[in-house]
Amino acid sequence: MTDRPLPAGATIGILGGGQLGRMLSVAAARLGYRTHIYEPAANPPAGHVADRVTTAPYEDLDALAAFAEAVDVVTYEFENIPASALDALEAHRPIHPNRRALTISQDRLIEKAFLRDLGLQTAPFAAVDDAEDLAEALAEIGCPAILKTRRLGYDGKGQARLNGPEDADTALAAMAGAPSILEGFVNFSREVSVIAARSATGEVAAFDPGENIHEGGILRTTTVPAQLTNAERTDAVLLAGKVLNALHYVGVMGVELFVTDAGLVVNEIAPRVHNSGHWTQNGCAVDQFEQHIRAVAGWPLGDGSRHADVVMENLIGDDIDRIPDLAREANTAIHLYGKAEARPGRKMGHVNRIVTKG
Amino acid sequence: MTDRPLPAGATIGILGGGQLGRMLSVAAARLGYRTHIYEPAANPPAGHVADRVTTAPYEDLDALAAFAEAVDVVTYEFENIPASALDALEAHRPIHPNRRALTISQDRLIEKAFLRDLGLQTAPFAAVDDAEDLAEALAEIGCPAILKTRRLGYDGKGQARLNGPEDADTALAAMAGAPSILEGFVNFSREVSVIAARSATGEVAAFDPGENIHEGGILRTTTVPAQLTNAERTDAVLLAGKVLNALHYVGVMGVELFVTDAGLVVNEIAPRVHNSGHWTQNGCAVDQFEQHIRAVAGWPLGDGSRHADVVMENLIGDDIDRIPDLAREANTAIHLYGKAEARPGRKMGHVNRIVTKG
Repeated sequence: MTDRPLPAGATIGILGGGQLGRMLSVAAARLGYRTHIYEPAANPPAGHVADRVTTAPYEDLDALAAFAEAVDVVTYEFENIPASALDALEAHRPIHPNRRALTISQDRLIEKAFLRDLGLQTAPFAAVDDAEDLAEALAEIGCPAILKTRRLGYDGKGQARLNGPEDADTALAAMAGAPSILEGFVNFSREVSVIAARSATGEVAAFDPGENIHEGGILRTTTVPAQLTNAERTDAVLLAGKVLNALHYVGVMGVELFVTDAGLVVNEIAPRVHNSGHWTQNGCAVDQFEQHIRAVAGWPLGDGSRHADVVMENLIGDDIDRIPDLAREANTAIHLYGKAEARPGRKMGHVNRIVTKG
Repeated sequence: MTDRPLPAGATIGILGGGQLGRMLSVAAARLGYRTHIYEPAANPPAGHVADRVTTAPYEDLDALAAFAEAVDVVTYEFENIPASALDALEAHRPIHPNRRALTISQDRLIEKAFLRDLGLQTAPFAAVDDAEDLAEALAEIGCPAILKTRRLGYDGKGQARLNGPEDADTALAAMAGAPSILEGFVNFSREVSVIAARSATGEVAAFDPGENIHEGGILRTTTVPAQLTNAERTDAVLLAGKVLNALHYVGVMGVELFVTDAGLVVNEIAPRVHNSGHWTQNGCAVDQFEQHIRAVAGWPLGDGSRHADVVMENLIGDDIDRIPDLAREANTAIHLYGKAEARPGRKMGHVNRIVTKG
C-alpha cells in the first residue's frame, strides 16, 4: 500500500452511499478504479455511478466481511461507523483514513482534547455527564454556551444552546442521557475551512481555504479565496498539516476554523471529503474527491493548485426547484445527487459558480 | 420531450460502453439521471459508472426492445449502429440525435453530398464502386488522393492512399469490394474542430474551436484556443449551426474542419461527443458530455463559456505508463477509461493541462 499504487482496475470499497460516496466513486473511475459501495439504505445515490453495491446494515458482520474480501482497500464517506464494523473490515483489508482518525472524530470530547494537546486553539470545553458536571462547566465556561452529545450529531442535530444557567435542565434533557460536552462560544469574524490531504508516503497538500456561510446549522455557501491575511492563510495550512501528521493520516480531511483576533480556532475536523471542499471540482485540476482517492490508492497527491475563483452554493430541499434557472446561468456547474425526494434540510445538490476575471 | 425536461431520476439509455459512454454516464449522473449502457462486449468501461448494463449484440432485437423499455430516452456514443437495431429501439423510445444524422454520418458519400448541398466546402470527392469509377474519379480529382470505404472506418482504418494512378489496383483491393469514395487532398494550414450542440427547442451553442494534431491517423492533442482569425472563428460556429439546424439535430456534434486560404473546409461530422471536445471537462462549467445530456434530456444548453485555456493530450497504448509522472504535474487533470489492457493505438485515457495565465 505505501510503496506502490493500487493497480489499475482495482476496486475501492466505500462505506456510505450518499453524495460524498457518489462523488468519490466518479473520481475513482477517473483514475481507472472501480468502486463498491456499502450502504444500509436501499438505492443509494452513489450506487448510480458505482460498479457494485452491497445493501446491508453495519451490524451484518458477514456482509462486511464479504464486502471487504471483494475490494482492495476500504475508505468511507462519513465518520460514524460502528467500531464492531471497523473490526470486521480491518480483519480483511486496510482502512484509510485510519482507525485513530475515526475514533477521534467520532467523539467531540476526544477530538477537542486531541486538538488542545497538539497546541491548537479550540473553543473552551468541558465534559458533561450529569447535572453536577453541567453546573461546574457553566461556572467555568460561562454563557452563552452549547451542550452537545459527544457522539453522533450532524448539521446542528443533538445540540442545545444555553443562554443562562436557567436553561441547564432543558438542555440536559435534550441530550437524553448521552455523554455530552459543553462548549463555550467563540467570538469569530468568519468561518473558513481547509481541505488538506496526506499521502501514504507522508506527503501533505492543502487546497486554498474557503470561507463558509451557514444557515440553520447547514452549510450554505463556500467562497474561494477566503478573506484571510497571508499569515492566517499560512497558519490554516500549517495547522491542518499538524493534525494530519499527528494522526499518520492517509486521505483528505476537512478542518473547520474560526478566524478570531487571537488567531485561528479549530471548530472541528472531519476525516473525509467535506462539503466545504466541493468548490474544488470546478476550481482545481485535481479536486478533493480525486485527492482522497489518490491518497487511498497510493498515488502522488495533486498539489492543490487553484485555477479559478469559485462560489459553491448548496441546493437544500426546495432549492432543487431553482434548477431550470440555474441551468441558464453562465459559468455555473450543477452537481445533483440523484436523490429521489426533496425534504427540508436535505442536501440535493450544489452549484459551483466560476468567477472569471473580467 | 420537447416541451419539458426528463424528470429527475429518469434513465438515459446509451448505446456503446466505451470511454465516451463512460463520460456521458458521469455527466448524466451529475444532472440527477441514471444511465443504462447497451454494449455487445463484456465489461465495458462505461459500466463502471452506470446504473445498469445490458451485454448483448446489436442483432439481438429482443434485448434491444427490453433495453428501450427500461429507459426513457436513447442516445449513443458512436455512429455505426445497424439500421435494424435502430428500428427495434425507435419502436419503443425516441433516439437523439435523430436517425437522419446517423444515416448521413454512417456513409462518407452521403455525408459529403449533404455538406455540399448545404453550401459548405468539402474535399473534392467521387463515388467509387469499381475500377472504372476509380479511373474516372482519379482523372477528375487527381493525386494524391485517398480511397475510403463509404461505411465504417475509424482512426485511419479502411483507407488507402493513392500517390498516382499506378496505386489504383492496390487501393481498390484494400476496399475488399465495399462501396467506396475517392477524396482529394485539401491543402490546409491547420485542423480545428467545433463541438456544437442543439437543444430540443432549437437553441444552438458552440464551444470555442480547438486545434487538433493527429499522429498516425489518431488524435494526439487538442489545444484551445485554436489559432484562428476572428472571421474563421465566426465561420466555424456558423457552419456548425447550419449543419445542426438542417438536421433538426438534438445533442452534441463534432465538426472537423480544415483551415485553408479559401476558407474552412469540412472534413467530417460526428453525431456524438467527440475526442476533440474532451478539453471542455476542465475548461468549461458545462462540458461536452453534460451538454449532450442536457440536449437529450430537454434541458437548456450551457452557453459554451470557457474559463481556462486547455491542452488535451490523448494517452494511447503505452502512454499509460506515463501516469506516475503525469500525476505529479500541476494543473493537469487525468481522465482514465478503466480499460483492462493497453494495446498499441488504444485510447486509454487523456489529460487536460490547464494553462493558467501567469
